[in-house]
This record gives sequence, structure tokens and C-alpha cells, in this order.
Amino acid sequence: MTPEDFRRHGHALIDWIAEYLEGVEQHPVGSRVQPGDIRASLPEHPPASAEPWEDILADLDRVVMPGITHWQHPSFFAYFPGNTSYPAILGDLAASGLGVQGMSWVTSPACTEVETLMMDWMQELLGLPAAFRSTSASGGGVIQGSASEATLTSILAARWKATGGAVNHDGDTSRLVAYSTSQSHSSIEKGLRIAGIGTEHWRIVPHDADFAMRPDELARMVAEDRAGGLVPFWVCANRGTTSSLAFDPLPEIGAIARREGLWLHVDAAMSGIAALAPEHRWVNDGMELADSYCTNPHKWMGVNFDCDLFYVADRVALLGALSILPEYLRSAAAESGAAIDYRDWQIPLGRRFRALKLWFTIRSGGVAEAQAMIRRHCQLTQQLAEWVALDDRFEIVAPHPLNLLCVRLKAGDTATDAMIAAANDTGLALFTRTVLDGQVACRISVGGRTTEARHVAAGWELLQSVAT
Amino acid sequence: MTPEDFRRHGHALIDWIAEYLEGVEQHPVGSRVQPGDIRASLPEHPPASAEPWEDILADLDRVVMPGITHWQHPSFFAYFPGNTSYPAILGDLAASGLGVQGMSWVTSPACTEVETLMMDWMQELLGLPAAFRSTSASGGGVIQGSASEATLTSILAARWKATGGAVNHDGDTSRLVAYSTSQSHSSIEKGLRIAGIGTEHWRIVPHDADFAMRPDELARMVAEDRAGGLVPFWVCANRGTTSSLAFDPLPEIGAIARREGLWLHVDAAMSGIAALAPEHRWVNDGMELADSYCTNPHKWMGVNFDCDLFYVADRVALLGALSILPEYLRSAAAESGAAIDYRDWQIPLGRRFRALKLWFTIRSGGVAEAQAMIRRHCQLTQQLAEWVALDDRFEIVAPHPLNLLCVRLKAGDTATDAMIAAANDTGLALFTRTVLDGQVACRISVGGRTTEARHVAAGWELLQSVAT
Repeated sequence: MTPEDFRRHGHALIDWIAEYLEGVEQHPVGSRVQPGDIRASLPEHPPASAEPWEDILADLDRVVMPGITHWQHPSFFAYFPGNTSYPAILGDLAASGLGVQGMSWVTSPACTEVETLMMDWMQELLGLPAAFRSTSASGGGVIQGSASEATLTSILAARWKATGGAVNHDGDTSRLVAYSTSQSHSSIEKGLRIAGIGTEHWRIVPHDADFAMRPDELARMVAEDRAGGLVPFWVCANRGTTSSLAFDPLPEIGAIARREGLWLHVDAAMSGIAALAPEHRWVNDGMELADSYCTNPHKWMGVNFDCDLFYVADRVALLGALSILPEYLRSAAAESGAAIDYRDWQIPLGRRFRALKLWFTIRSGGVAEAQAMIRRHCQLTQQLAEWVALDDRFEIVAPHPLNLLCVRLKAGDTATDAMIAAANDTGLALFTRTVLDGQVACRISVGGRTTEARHVAAGWELLQSVAT
Repeated sequence: MTPEDFRRHGHALIDWIAEYLEGVEQHPVGSRVQPGDIRASLPEHPPASAEPWEDILADLDRVVMPGITHWQHPSFFAYFPGNTSYPAILGDLAASGLGVQGMSWVTSPACTEVETLMMDWMQELLGLPAAFRSTSASGGGVIQGSASEATLTSILAARWKATGGAVNHDGDTSRLVAYSTSQSHSSIEKGLRIAGIGTEHWRIVPHDADFAMRPDELARMVAEDRAGGLVPFWVCANRGTTSSLAFDPLPEIGAIARREGLWLHVDAAMSGIAALAPEHRWVNDGMELADSYCTNPHKWMGVNFDCDLFYVADRVALLGALSILPEYLRSAAAESGAAIDYRDWQIPLGRRFRALKLWFTIRSGGVAEAQAMIRRHCQLTQQLAEWVALDDRFEIVAPHPLNLLCVRLKAGDTATDAMIAAANDTGLALFTRTVLDGQVACRISVGGRTTEARHVAAGWELLQSVAT
């Protein structure tokens, strides 16, 4: 492809994306294909020679589009928001074009320094503790690919600290115990498992009627484990669980963590972004007690995946856990201590210039745009809750302080499951089911960049119409 | 940003990228800034309101460009190739625009099915064992972000298999022992450490004069460990080490691994791509004995980062190690066994539609374009080796079957270090140093998409001119 071809095809693809995003409502929200359908529409073997670009672009419509579940559809109420935005798409495009590696400061200083600055900007915009700033005594932040990776990184830093670094040599995790509720994300179990903390040493702390951790139970379990000769080392507090958006009480959990010497990780993957709006900054209550924290602009801020913000109050433990310095990666800048090498802040070595999409988004829209979106989603969710309360076939099964509403049919699990399936089958909206304390619920996640009142109203009418 | 703004700004950014890539030779290869320079040229605090797009785009030139080390420069001989290409940039752009999550088949079937097909296409194009195909009895492939993640995933699958799955519950890795040479990539130590295999249980197998693993030493160490009551479980064979592009003897290592029940992981992060050209397919010799394998189109194939191909011959161990199924991620398609959920094939949960950039690249250029590039790089490297042999101040310190040449000055380490520093300081080219068996060497990695004979000749003349 010549540079001239690239310009022509690139312009056409930009136009295709704008058309797609503006016209996304024309599509059924969830893909209708069956397993194998997409593959069957493509050649089983690679082409013997180059194909015209027009054929490739046409296959986006012919082959790919039927197999897309449209996360950008305004009636996508499933999972969690996964918003793109135009400035973020352009930021990612610039990163692809530059094609640099940000594993070390020296491999492209701008990649590291813009990222560090963006982490400090976001600390400020979210009202997070100053201990998370890169300019603080021992803290700092990094963009990770996902909250899963942030969680694992947090566990590894805590593991290093709890063993005084010995784990790097002896791999001994046999006495370490971790804590979270059953409502914590699957990445907690996965991260612990990867780090050598099996389910036998993962304590499920009981939750209250609102699906939030009971601090008294945490304290009791920690004491029991300590009496049993074990080493409580890590607790995950959720600020907005995946299933129901429950908020674990951070001040109380933090006090226990401090007293008992546990590393406190706060997982606020989606809800943390709410703090962009000052009236929702309560999501950060108690955050000054956290050792690490993550939230995802790729969920609720319009910065397309992957962009997870991960902060630590103590970077020494992080670097102790992850830094390895072979000869071919040494540099004078890093050895002087003047530069950050982000490869030591994450699982992989390689890294893209992900800060560009965050930088472009903050500058192009200003924080006001994100605040307006968050406020709209929260207001729409509260409006929806009022409508649900008027239909006595339904019940709301969890608190809904922000933008997720969990509802069920009083008729029971089977009826609720059938309602969700029937609604999704129409293609007019998409919902996800979950199970809360043994009962099936329909999650209504209101978070699309273009989701307006009419989409929420139509989604609710759809659920009502298929509810039996 | 309105759709109309996006079209206009997007077209401008596409043009900016074309100009950048076509004009990249105007820039010094390595960035000249000092730590803190880039940050100092930006506002310390986020903007209070939206900024004009023109200002943002202008900052790419004003702020970012001085802080870029140009991985796309044809005289970039450092680290490893990290090529972008025009079709791959467009593939990544399409993925950003679609903004879908590929964590499960159901969250966007096309994202999973195009990826599975691309892994099968690449198995065919690279001439890899049929056991790696998704259509085989128990194997399959997945796109990972990096070889680091592929290595860790491989270790986790092996750990699960060696403990009969018990590690998921008891986290007990205390008897497991892993093997590689000192030449293996830093991600091996990092991956083992993360998985709870400390350095005390990581055996450095001696290498021969060509920096390749000695199978007799591997066999001896495995026997010793077994006699000591330990459980040898994983060996990494490098096909192209980072420092010198050494090739561990796969048939011999594989035979030992089979006999002793070790999981054999083959790390061919850059060199594996050479197999696209049939005359270099020897890089796969013995691969039928591998349990897992990875190579990176984002290094030597023009598919921009991140795109690592990871194959396993036994997906049962992989899924055993990584699958976790909470209620909110269940789907009928996955439970029927008809669909792949790639979240269980990797560390994170979320995943982008990375297959698009591979698909676009293969279709747009055809394999012939990649083959021609690989052949050119290998020929240029052999030509360079002939030139070096004519200058008796220099010596070649390792075999150079493909596209990496390691040289040093006979005058010693200090002189070699000074030569590398002086050459890099000119900005005309960029080289990386390494240390091979205690001796400093200059790595000359020939792998740029636009690197031609004149760049290699100029790079060599530069090294000669600054050698003392």
C-alpha cells in the first residue's frame, strides 16, 4: 500500500467509522449469528496474492457487521459501558501511526512522560489522594490494559511486601491469605490464582443486604487466620461491583487493613469515573487508606479500550515485585533514577502509546463533556427506577446510586430469565443477567455515549412487554 | 466532536501519519530530550475547558515529536524491529471505531471467529504443526498482547498440568522447577516469578559457544532435580534469543521434555516470523514436540503492536489454568462447547478486535510482501557481516543466520561501549548494546519496513567512523 493509497483508504475508513457510529441504531444490538457462521463466510485458507482494498473494506459490512454485538449502540444495556469517542479513536490512530514502544523511558520519552502527566491530571480530575501522584514521595500511576491486569499487579506488589521480597526467590506463598466478597469481579480469583494464592487461601467475606462487605466479618476472619498461623496480606474493596454496583465500606475496611498490615486494593473499574462529577465524589470516601486503586476510562469516560488507570501509594513494592533488568534494557536515564521505566509497573514488557487517547479526550471534550454524560446516565437510571416501582410485577433488588439498576420479576427466576431472553431476541436492546444471593436478576446498565431518555424508556417498555 | 469534525480531523490525521512515516528519515533516530523535558513543555494541570483540535494536532509536532525514538526509522537498528504498516494501521483504526469487546464469543462473535481463522491462516503460512490448528483434536491459537503474556500463560498451563489442577486450590508451587538458558528473555524470569516459581527453582541451563542450550546439561539438571524430590515441569527453548539470536536445539530439547514430562514452550518472538519464507522454515525444526509456541507479527511482519500469536497443542490445560465463569459471563453458546471464549486463553478479561490488523495486512499485501521484506533483511545482514569481516578492528561474536549481527571491537568493552554511544549520539542511527558471556557487544538488528541497503551501509560506515 503506497502512502497515496493509505491516504485514500484511510479517509474512506474514517468516513466508514463515522457512518457506522452515527447509524448504529439501525443494527440489532446483539449479533444474531450462530457459532461458526462468520468463519463459514470467509475463505478457509489465506489468499495466495494481494487483494484489492475495496474488497477488504466491503467485508467489514458483508462479513464482520453481522457478527458484531454493538457496544456503541445507545440501547446496549448489557455488561458495562465500553464507550469509544471520536477524540479517543483519533488518539489511538496517532499511536498506531507513531508505532513506538514505551517499555522504557529511553525507547520513547514522550510515551512515558505524557502518560505520567495524564495519570497526574486524572488524579486531580477524580479528586484522588495526593499520595497517588507521580510527584509524591513514593506513589505514582500507570496505564494498564485492564482492571484484571491492575488487580494482578496489585496482588504481586502486596505479595512482595508481605514476604519482604523473599517470594521472588523462594516462590513461597503458602501462608498468604487474601480477602474479598463473593461480589468481587472474576479477575480477583484469576489474579490470586495466577499469583499462587489458591482458592483455599481466598476468603469470601460475607456481605450485607446491600451486597457490601461486612467489616466485622473481615476483622473476624483476619484474626482467625492469624491465630491459625497464616499471613493475611491483601484485601480487595469494590467500589461498584460488577453484578449490582455495590460499594464496600472503604473507611472501615481501610482501618482494618492499616491495623492488620494488609495491602488494600480498591477496584472501582467503572464507578470510579463517576468522581469526575463532584457530587459523585463520595465514591472515593476512604481512598486515603488504599495502597492501590484502579478505574477504567475505557468503561465510562469515552476512552476506547484499553485504558485502565492504576495507582499505587508505594511504588517500591511494585518495582520490587516486577523489575528485572537485563543488559539489553539498561539505560543511563533509568539508572540515574530520573526516568520511569513503565515496563516495571506492569505484567508485559511491551506497551503502546495509550496516553494519547486519554490526552486527546481530555483536551478535546474537556472534563465538562464527561461530567455531562455521567450526570445524564445517573439521572436516567433514577428515572428508570421510578418507572419500575410503578409496575408491581417487578422488584428492584439492589441499591442503585449511580447508573446500574438490577431488577427481577416477582414471578421468579424462570420468568426473569425468560424476560431477558425475549427482550434480547428482539434485537432492540441488550441486557445481561446475573445472580444475586441465589436469585436471577436483570442488569440494566445505563452508560452509552449516545444513550438518551428515549432509549431508556424504550428499553423499559420492551422489558414490560415481554414480562409474563 | 461532531461526526463532521471527526471526518475532517480524521482525514487530517491520516495525512499527518503518511507524512510522518514518509518523512521519518528527517528525524534523529533516538530522541535527544532529557528526563522531564517533555512534561515541562506541557501544562501541569488539565485544561478547564475544551481546546481546539488544531492545538491538539499541533502538539504532536511541538511536544511529542522531540520525545519520540523513531522505531519506524529505516536506520533504527536497536532492540528488535517494531514495524507498523499502512494496512495494519487501518485494521487497528477499524477496531477502535467498532469499539467491541471480544472477551467472550457472544460479546461479538466476529471478533472471536476472525481471530481463530487468522490463527489458522498463520499456522498454515508459517508451516507450524497441524496440532496448533483450532480444527485439531485439542490445540488452538489466540492473539496475545505480547510474548511476555504468552510466556506467562504457558507457564500457568504447565503449572496446572503438572499439579493435576491442584494449584488452583492450594497454590502450591513449592516443588516445581523450570529451565531455560541465561540467554532467554527477561519475560521468562518475570513470568516464572509471577506464577510463584522463584529464582531458586529456575535453572539456568548452560549454553554452548553459540549461546544455544546444551541438551546434555538440561538432561543432567532435570535428573538431579528429580533425584532431589523436585518436579521439573517447564522448559523454554528460544528460537532466536534477544541478545544474539541464538537457536536452542529443539529436537533434542523436545525429546528430553517428552521423556521427562516437561511442558515445552518455544519462544520465537521475532525469528518465528522468518518461517513465512520457506527457505527459513528451519526455524520450526522440532516444533512438533512443542506444547506451546509464540511469535510476534508486531515485530517482523508489519502488524503494529500489539499482536503476538500464541499456540497450544493442549487447550485443556490452558482452560484449566485460566477459566473462571461468574454468572454475568455465562452464555448458551459457550456452554454448548460450540464457541470459544478467549477470555479463558489469556491473563486479562477484556480484549480488543486485534485480528483485524492481521487480516488487513495478510489480505492487502499478501504473504509475498512480508516474504520479500524478510529476505531483504536477511540478505542485508549477511552483506553487513562480510563488510565487518574486512575491518580487523571488529569481530563478530555470534552466529547470524537471519537479521541480527552482534559485533564488538577487539579493543575491548570500553571501546565498544564508546563506539555505540558515539554512533547513537549522532542521531543518524540507533544501536543497542548487550553483554554476551561477559563481553560487551553491539547488536545490529536489521528489520525496518523501509530499511534498504543504503541505510545498512551508512550505519556500518558510522560505526567504523566512531570506532577508536
